Amino acid sequence: MNNISKEELNSRISELQQKLKKQNIDSAVIIQNADLFYFTGTVQAEYLYIPDSGEAVLLVRRGNKRAEKETALEKIVEFKRSAEIPEIIKKEDLDSPDELGLELDILPYKTANKLQQIFAADKITNITTLIRQVRMVKSDSEIQLIKRAANKLKAVPQLTKEHLTADMNELELSAIIEQDLRQKGHTGFVRMRGLNNELPLGVCTAGKKSTAEVQVDSICAGAGVHPSAGVGASKSRLKDSEPIILDYVATHQGYIADQTRMAVLGKPSAYLQKTYDKMVQLQTELSKYLTPDYSWQEIYEEGKRLAEELEVTDYYLGYGDNKEKFVGHGVGVELNEFPFLATGLDFKLKPGMTIALEPKLVVPDIGAIGIENTYLVTENQPKKLTTASEELIKV
Amino acid sequence: MNNISKEELNSRISELQQKLKKQNIDSAVIIQNADLFYFTGTVQAEYLYIPDSGEAVLLVRRGNKRAEKETALEKIVEFKRSAEIPEIIKKEDLDSPDELGLELDILPYKTANKLQQIFAADKITNITTLIRQVRMVKSDSEIQLIKRAANKLKAVPQLTKEHLTADMNELELSAIIEQDLRQKGHTGFVRMRGLNNELPLGVCTAGKKSTAEVQVDSICAGAGVHPSAGVGASKSRLKDSEPIILDYVATHQGYIADQTRMAVLGKPSAYLQKTYDKMVQLQTELSKYLTPDYSWQEIYEEGKRLAEELEVTDYYLGYGDNKEKFVGHGVGVELNEFPFLATGLDFKLKPGMTIALEPKLVVPDIGAIGIENTYLVTENQPKKLTTASEELIKV
Repeated sequence: MNNISKEELNSRISELQQKLKKQNIDSAVIIQNADLFYFTGTVQAEYLYIPDSGEAVLLVRRGNKRAEKETALEKIVEFKRSAEIPEIIKKEDLDSPDELGLELDILPYKTANKLQQIFAADKITNITTLIRQVRMVKSDSEIQLIKRAANKLKAVPQLTKEHLTADMNELELSAIIEQDLRQKGHTGFVRMRGLNNELPLGVCTAGKKSTAEVQVDSICAGAGVHPSAGVGASKSRLKDSEPIILDYVATHQGYIADQTRMAVLGKPSAYLQKTYDKMVQLQTELSKYLTPDYSWQEIYEEGKRLAEELEVTDYYLGYGDNKEKFVGHGVGVELNEFPFLATGLDFKLKPGMTIALEPKLVVPDIGAIGIENTYLVTENQPKKLTTASEELIKV
Repeated sequence: MNNISKEELNSRISELQQKLKKQNIDSAVIIQNADLFYFTGTVQAEYLYIPDSGEAVLLVRRGNKRAEKETALEKIVEFKRSAEIPEIIKKEDLDSPDELGLELDILPYKTANKLQQIFAADKITNITTLIRQVRMVKSDSEIQLIKRAANKLKAVPQLTKEHLTADMNELELSAIIEQDLRQKGHTGFVRMRGLNNELPLGVCTAGKKSTAEVQVDSICAGAGVHPSAGVGASKSRLKDSEPIILDYVATHQGYIADQTRMAVLGKPSAYLQKTYDKMVQLQTELSKYLTPDYSWQEIYEEGKRLAEELEVTDYYLGYGDNKEKFVGHGVGVELNEFPFLATGLDFKLKPGMTIALEPKLVVPDIGAIGIENTYLVTENQPKKLTTASEELIKV
C-alpha cells in the first residue's frame, strides 16, 4: 500500500535537502508522526535519516513489517537497539554529522539529546521552519486529498438541521457531527503541532460559552466538557436564538480541511443575522487577497481594515486582551501549517498553499460570530475547497 | 468551579516539594496539560512555579480569566510577556533556582531551553519520574472519578449487540462506541504521555488486522483508517467468526479508565472460545497479585508463568520480535501512568494505585485475543473497577 508515490517522496526529500545544504546542516533526522508521514508515507518507522544529499535511510525497529509495506522509500534498515545506529550509518557510507537538523520545536528535550548522542552530532539545529516551508506548498495529489477532506464537511448544515433540538447541549450536537466525520474516515485525532495542542475533532460552542478563553491558539475553541480538557464542546444547553459555532476539522488520508459554520435555534436576533452576514461578507472580500500578490501579513492587515469598514473592530478576532494575532493558517498534515496570516510575516503567498481563513468576532455576552473556509491559492483567483452552504443554519 | 479542592492540590504540591528537596532541586516549573491539571485543576495557565517549599505560583497569560475561576490555588499572577517573569519571581521573594526541575521527557527542546533562560536556572533536571510518583497513588476522590469513567464502559457489550451487523467495518462499529463515550462526557482526546502517542478514543480491531504492528506502546492497537494514522479501527470489514477486540478509554473529569472486551459475529470457533476463556482465567488469576505484597515486575513474571501454565506462551503479549514488555499500566490523568507491570521494575504496589491489566495474545492469522480491566489496589484484595460483562459478546 504505497499511499504516497516514490516520486513525490523523493521530491519532498530533495527539497528539504536543498534547504539543509543552504544552511550548512549536514543531515536531518525526522521522528514526529506528521513529518514522518509526509516524508515517508508511514508512521511505523522510528527515524528517517536524511543526509544533505543522496538517498534517505528509514530506520525501523525490528519486527515491524508495516513500515516496509506502507512506504515507497527503498532504503529501509532494521535495528533492534539504538546503539546499533552509528554502525548502520557507517555501513551506509554516511558521515556522522557536524550539524544535525532536528524538529526541536516539538522534540522532547531528552529525545533531542539522545538523538544528538546516537547520531554523534557536534551540534543540533532546529529545522522545523525548513520542514514547514517544504510542506506549505501542496502538490496536486495533496490538493486532491484536502478537497476530499473538505467534502466531508459539506454535511454539517444538513446534520445540524436533522439532529439539533431544543433540549440539546453543545456536546450532544458535537458528538453527532464528530461521529459522522469518524464514519467518513477521520483518523480519530487532530494533529496540531505543539505541546498541549489537544483538540477533539471539532467544536460546537454557543453563546457566552463561546467567549471562553482557551490556551490553544484558536478563536472560540469552546469551554470543553470539564476544566481538565478546557477545549471543545461543553455540556451547556443550546439556548434559543444564541449563535452556535460549528468548527470542524475533517481528515482524509492524513490531510486536513477546516471549516466553521453557524447555526441558531429559533429565530436569530436582528443583530446576529446582520453581524453574521457581515462576517460572510468580510470573508468573501478578504479571500480575494489570497493570491501570490499579497503577503501573509498583508492579508491580516486587510482583514483588520475590512473589520473597520464593517464596524466590528472591537470584537474582531476577540476582544480586550484576548485578541488572536492571526486571521488564517495553512492546513495540510497538521492543523497549524505555514502560512500564518499574521502581523510581521512579510512573505508572499504561493500557488498551492491551502489556507483556512477564519474571520470571527467574539462579542461579550452574545457569543462568537464568524465563518471559516479552507481555500487553495492558485496563480489567479483562490479556490474555495469547503463548499458547505454558508447560510446561517436555522433550526 | 473548583473542581479539585485546595486541600487536595496542596497535598499534591507538598508531596512533590518533598521529593524535590530530597534531590536538591530548588524549584519546578510545570507546563504540560495533564500535569498542570493535576497540580492546579486547570489547563488555562501557562506555568506553575513550585518552589521546594512555600506556596506555588500560577502564572497566567493576561486576559485569561478562566484559570482563576477553575483553580483552587490562591497565588495567581498575570503576565503579558515571558520577559516579565524574572521580575515576578523576585517580587514573590523567590530565588532563581540553581537547579530547575522540568518535564524533560515531553517538554520540547526549545521550550526547555527557553524556560531555563526565563527562570535563570543554572541547570535543568528531568522531574517526570517524581511527578509520576506523586500521581501514581490515587486519593479517594480520584478513585471516585476513575470509577465513574469505568462505569461509562459498561455499555460496550450492549452497544455492540445492538449495532454490530454482518456488513460493518471496524471503523463503523468503533465510531458508534466512540460517540457513546463522547456523549457521556469524554473529553474528545486521550492523554497518553509522550511524542507520537496519538490515539482515537479506542480501538475496534479484528482478525488479521488486529495483528498489525504499531509504533504506539500498546498491544493490538489497530491498523488505523490509513497509514497516516496507523492506529485505531480500520475500514476492514468485520468477518464471521473472527475475534473482535474492543479496547476503549473512557474519561471522567480528566480521569481515565481502560477496558477491553471481545466480540464475534456468528459462531466463534472452538479455538477462539477456548482461548478467550483462558485469557479471562489468566486475568482473574493474575489480578489476585495486584496487592502491596507484590512488585511491578513480579506481576509481569506471574503473568508469564500463568501464560505457560495455560499453554499460550508463544502468542502471549505478541509473537516473534513483537512482544510487548508489559502486562499492565497505571491509569489516571494519563493512559500510561506508573506503575508499569514490566520486567526490571522492583517496586512494590501501593494501595490507591489504579492499574489496567491487559493480558492479550496475538495469534498469527487469527487475531488478537484478550481482555483488560482497570483495578484498584487496596490493602487487601484488588477491586475491579471496569465491570462490563466479560462474556464473549456473540452477535
